[in-house]
Amino acid sequence: MENCIFCKIIKGELPAQRVYEDDNYLAFLSIGPVSQGHTVVIPKKHTATFAELEPKDAADLICVVQTLAKEIVAKLDAKAFNLGLNNGELAGQVVPHVHWHIMPRYQDDGLVHWHVNEEAKNKMDEVLAKLVN
Amino acid sequence: MENCIFCKIIKGELPAQRVYEDDNYLAFLSIGPVSQGHTVVIPKKHTATFAELEPKDAADLICVVQTLAKEIVAKLDAKAFNLGLNNGELAGQVVPHVHWHIMPRYQDDGLVHWHVNEEAKNKMDEVLAKLVN
Repeated sequence: MENCIFCKIIKGELPAQRVYEDDNYLAFLSIGPVSQGHTVVIPKKHTATFAELEPKDAADLICVVQTLAKEIVAKLDAKAFNLGLNNGELAGQVVPHVHWHIMPRYQDDGLVHWHVNEEAKNKMDEVLAKLVN
Repeated sequence: MENCIFCKIIKGELPAQRVYEDDNYLAFLSIGPVSQGHTVVIPKKHTATFAELEPKDAADLICVVQTLAKEIVAKLDAKAFNLGLNNGELAGQVVPHVHWHIMPRYQDDGLVHWHVNEEAKNKMDEVLAKLVN
């Protein structure tokens, strides 16, 4: 897509520190790494969000992510990893081209998960009723 | 697996607020919700970590996650969602039975992503050299 930053990276019109590339996928270091080796994985075919991916494309993409995550962890001697995906601007998706974050983890790296939202905890029965009806 | 909390939930030996269930998958509300509708999705077949999943199983699982995420967002009138997966204790994986987090997002919900790690940013060339060699 013409004005998509990630499509420009794919075409070589913008630089990136490429970790992996094949005909259909590209992985590069995040320019805003939360940990050493934080990598972004994208399909070359432009789709704005994960929700819009064809299921087969979502499935193929996660297999690439799995392979890369294991390789990255091994090569960097990391101890674990997080996967993250932001679907939509309000979820922190900055670039509207579907992408996975692989975030290698290390002892005492200081990263802390989101805390429990007490209001959400108090409303679980109400939420469940909406979801199962 | 005998002492696995999620296997016990699957077998009905421990309670959960079930959002979805079929022969192979179960989804239930997280007991520590970071947002309203925070849902955990698991395969019924016990595998400790995402890294250990057969690629086909990882692929099938993400398709279930995709379907559920879209349904949950629609039913709760959320605006976006995050997916998260913790692989290994050091990544915050508390229960060693592979599980995805679906976290619906709302305007002004206060959730903030991990910040850029300046040391990691300064070492990107060094990290890349390890990854591509």
